[in-house]
Amino acid sequence: MAKKIVVIGGSAAGPKAASKARRMDCNAEITIIQKGKYLSMASCGYPYYVGGVFDERNKLISSPTGTPRDSNFFSKVKDIKAVVNTEVTKIDRKNKKVTVKNLKTCDNAEYNYDKLIITTGAKPIFPNLPGSELEGISTLQSMEDADYLKKVAVEKKIKNAVIVGGGLIGIETCEALQLAGIKVTVVEKLPQILPFLDWEMAKLTEKEVKKHGANIYTGHSVDEFIGKDGKLTGVKLSNDEILDCELAVVSIGNKPNISLAKDAGLRIGVTGGIEVNKFMQTSDPDIYAAGDCVEIHDLVSHNRVKTHWPMGDAANLQGRVVGQNVINGNEATYEGAVLTGICKVFDYTVGSSGFSEQRARQEGYANIISAIHFAPDKPGFMDAKPIGIKMVADKRTGTLLGVQVIGTGDVSKRLAIAAMALHAKMHISDLVNLDLPYAPPFSPAIENFITAVHVLENKWLGRMDGISSVEVKQKLDNNEDMYILDVRTTNEYEQMRLGIGETLIPLGAIRDNLDKLPQAKNTLIVVYCKISLRGYEAACCLKGNGYTNVKVMEGGILGWPYQREK
Amino acid sequence: MAKKIVVIGGSAAGPKAASKARRMDCNAEITIIQKGKYLSMASCGYPYYVGGVFDERNKLISSPTGTPRDSNFFSKVKDIKAVVNTEVTKIDRKNKKVTVKNLKTCDNAEYNYDKLIITTGAKPIFPNLPGSELEGISTLQSMEDADYLKKVAVEKKIKNAVIVGGGLIGIETCEALQLAGIKVTVVEKLPQILPFLDWEMAKLTEKEVKKHGANIYTGHSVDEFIGKDGKLTGVKLSNDEILDCELAVVSIGNKPNISLAKDAGLRIGVTGGIEVNKFMQTSDPDIYAAGDCVEIHDLVSHNRVKTHWPMGDAANLQGRVVGQNVINGNEATYEGAVLTGICKVFDYTVGSSGFSEQRARQEGYANIISAIHFAPDKPGFMDAKPIGIKMVADKRTGTLLGVQVIGTGDVSKRLAIAAMALHAKMHISDLVNLDLPYAPPFSPAIENFITAVHVLENKWLGRMDGISSVEVKQKLDNNEDMYILDVRTTNEYEQMRLGIGETLIPLGAIRDNLDKLPQAKNTLIVVYCKISLRGYEAACCLKGNGYTNVKVMEGGILGWPYQREK
Repeated sequence: MAKKIVVIGGSAAGPKAASKARRMDCNAEITIIQKGKYLSMASCGYPYYVGGVFDERNKLISSPTGTPRDSNFFSKVKDIKAVVNTEVTKIDRKNKKVTVKNLKTCDNAEYNYDKLIITTGAKPIFPNLPGSELEGISTLQSMEDADYLKKVAVEKKIKNAVIVGGGLIGIETCEALQLAGIKVTVVEKLPQILPFLDWEMAKLTEKEVKKHGANIYTGHSVDEFIGKDGKLTGVKLSNDEILDCELAVVSIGNKPNISLAKDAGLRIGVTGGIEVNKFMQTSDPDIYAAGDCVEIHDLVSHNRVKTHWPMGDAANLQGRVVGQNVINGNEATYEGAVLTGICKVFDYTVGSSGFSEQRARQEGYANIISAIHFAPDKPGFMDAKPIGIKMVADKRTGTLLGVQVIGTGDVSKRLAIAAMALHAKMHISDLVNLDLPYAPPFSPAIENFITAVHVLENKWLGRMDGISSVEVKQKLDNNEDMYILDVRTTNEYEQMRLGIGETLIPLGAIRDNLDKLPQAKNTLIVVYCKISLRGYEAACCLKGNGYTNVKVMEGGILGWPYQREK
Repeated sequence: MAKKIVVIGGSAAGPKAASKARRMDCNAEITIIQKGKYLSMASCGYPYYVGGVFDERNKLISSPTGTPRDSNFFSKVKDIKAVVNTEVTKIDRKNKKVTVKNLKTCDNAEYNYDKLIITTGAKPIFPNLPGSELEGISTLQSMEDADYLKKVAVEKKIKNAVIVGGGLIGIETCEALQLAGIKVTVVEKLPQILPFLDWEMAKLTEKEVKKHGANIYTGHSVDEFIGKDGKLTGVKLSNDEILDCELAVVSIGNKPNISLAKDAGLRIGVTGGIEVNKFMQTSDPDIYAAGDCVEIHDLVSHNRVKTHWPMGDAANLQGRVVGQNVINGNEATYEGAVLTGICKVFDYTVGSSGFSEQRARQEGYANIISAIHFAPDKPGFMDAKPIGIKMVADKRTGTLLGVQVIGTGDVSKRLAIAAMALHAKMHISDLVNLDLPYAPPFSPAIENFITAVHVLENKWLGRMDGISSVEVKQKLDNNEDMYILDVRTTNEYEQMRLGIGETLIPLGAIRDNLDKLPQAKNTLIVVYCKISLRGYEAACCLKGNGYTNVKVMEGGILGWPYQREK
């Protein structure tokens, strides 16, 4: 008899699971029940639709060849019954059936299942604040949201918008609205945007976003929506400041839709997502779950940590695993994610894989080593653009824990390399001699990722004493004694400089100017250049000349997250 | 007493080793002896200089900040003595000294060493053919070559050029000269260009190169250079055809410069490069070697195979290892390369990591599985460009052996992912659920590399029977019985089609048109679409309807390396 598969949810994981199940079993009866109107929406594309990267709304809900992925498509092309505008109201595990309600007709119906797949997704968190009911407040997580914001962008009536929350979606929405000609201010409660980044990497990103005309308020929350005649006119911040705006987009995160699963008595995990094993099977062996409604293992901490990881790529991969297992039994596994995220904002790209330094500490890694490296992403003669890489490793074992990459250069490649290193649990010593694709159009002779590993190795082996820009700033603020040495050329110094009390002695002139340095050999000397490769050479030279307390400021001038004199 | 380090060779590995040694030991006496005039040349940049990507010659021999890397730079900035125009004529291992000859003054001198580093590089192979002495024949492996070809490109007197040899440098030179307005023909003795690719991947690349106006003759060798008044006027091919040209650039490979090492009695390896251990130490423990003059292990075959691997990135990494070991004893290792190469040709990028299918067979892998996948490199709404990925794995163990990537999309990222997978000796099952950086500007929701792994897995597990375009073509040529089924839409069929006797039944119409298919259920049915994802779905459907001999043509229309009807 044909196997009955019922899928609750029709966005990403659900249709993927259904389609994979179909390819595994031509005879199964497969039904998708979708609460909303649309199926297989490209929801990660919403900001690009709003921002005008493309204007054909149809592309958000069509196959690559332009066929709308509606019920007819699923029926004809996939032999899958896809029921829309229909909500599952109850899972009856004992009798293996679900009750559904047609949201248009309010009719009820029942579907029996042999295997049930829950892909109910997540919903945006919406703050319970005064004024939440005003017109002009939206999220960007549904086709309806995308339609609303696209209309706003096209009509060009709105001058000012506030994004509440500076995470991935907030920053993508910031770009979209700014490109649509709206003056945007991002308000983030934390001291930085993009919390998967360490503070200094986030600050460098904020600088770039601001260059494009957007405002960023960190360390502020929105306490109230203010309006007139039912329409939003501004938001009130925690410091009582009022930002005028006719539009607010809330993006402060989302939480898994688990009510159906919870009501059915399925086990819910520590992070609030549905608990699944590596086969994506819930606590009921006939029910699987995938996508934004589950919680998964993080692979960096060797599965010690559980995570809610609502990402489109993970949802699809999990769906593929479920599609196999509902047909063939538990043969496919999904072990977890290394927590890779990437975000484009104007001409800048920002991403992270694994743990940031702050997250690693939160997860209990006490003995951490990190290194920051900024450099052009190609040889100088090939129109190179800078990228900055921060690496975090377990000092005890030398295993990589996380990598952050930012810049206008090719960030996504370096992040992909990082993700692979984390998947393979590679050690610093596995990474120093990688054979990566090299030709001048694509990378420097020693690829940026590898150079960053070299910096990390130099620190790890005690060859290089690094100091972060944050530590240097703290010492400056505390008026601590130190000698700050910029070893770039005079030309470079004239064009750009920190102005933090540094002395300029170009690297090539150091050996002839040792007498200009502090007499006391134990003076703290902080040395840097543009990216700090020359800084490292200078430090080696100074140490060779008897200085015992020389530190290289990592990332150099390009990694300085504060104001520069010039 | 200060350690004496002598480095023979000043291109890539040599200066890197010297600089690293300096950073490890401030007091060592470090001397580079360079036969030519220049130091630290960016030799991989020559084609881009010739092609006019940049015109400032200085950039080829300068540091990123624009300082020429001459003897003065090495002295001032690195405290390294760099002697140019000076040839080492003899290595006296017993007395640990080298004899050198100043090529300008013809004076001889001696340098004692504690540790000697040989980085003598490789020299282009030049064919011993009639007419080799004619004016107008060059290679592109030295500053002098680059100067000559840049002059040719700028003067615009030459109309036709022949590139002898279609390897990496040949193809880069082809682009450079074509961009300079010269009509270029590449003549390659083998049946394909870029021998690190499998035949069908090379043919797809040839199609692209030809689109930009260059000619490619494969399966032909140049037998004679023809001239008049001492100047080249053409080349004669093995089939007696004469190609008129005023310029010929020879790029048929290079061989390690080992005469000094050989004369000194150092062990030479099976491939003709200097033999080194993993510390890059020769058979004399006081002599190290690195770069294009050594042979290294290949990491794909688990070190069974030795390789001459003259790549700029490998040379630099090896130099860094040597720089550490000459100072600190054997602490750093270089284990080998996974054989990653990449090449840009016009707007197309081509690369490989690990073994191609043909190379894997040559290396003794009898039981191979491969898969080809073509797809856009981003979601359709993000201005996606196609890339094609071919994966080769060991069928017995499921371990990845090699990956080839071609296309106008972001090839280098996918190749970097492949290189990491090969470094980590990853298995198909390690690769199906990779957590790679996903956002619409960077990749489809399921990254192309992962989808290619899915195709490979489907074949490996017997879920999908694939057939290569090459096999289909053979069957066509042999008039073998088969039913060829294109399952794209009518629209797509009107725009582009193979015209090899196929029937069009769009995927969504198959279930309603089963009666149009051959009655005999064991008929060979070859099914495809544009990239063959729909082809795979159709195959699943046909199998479900009792057809027992259904094969998916891998890579679909985009992977078809022959002429199309339309």
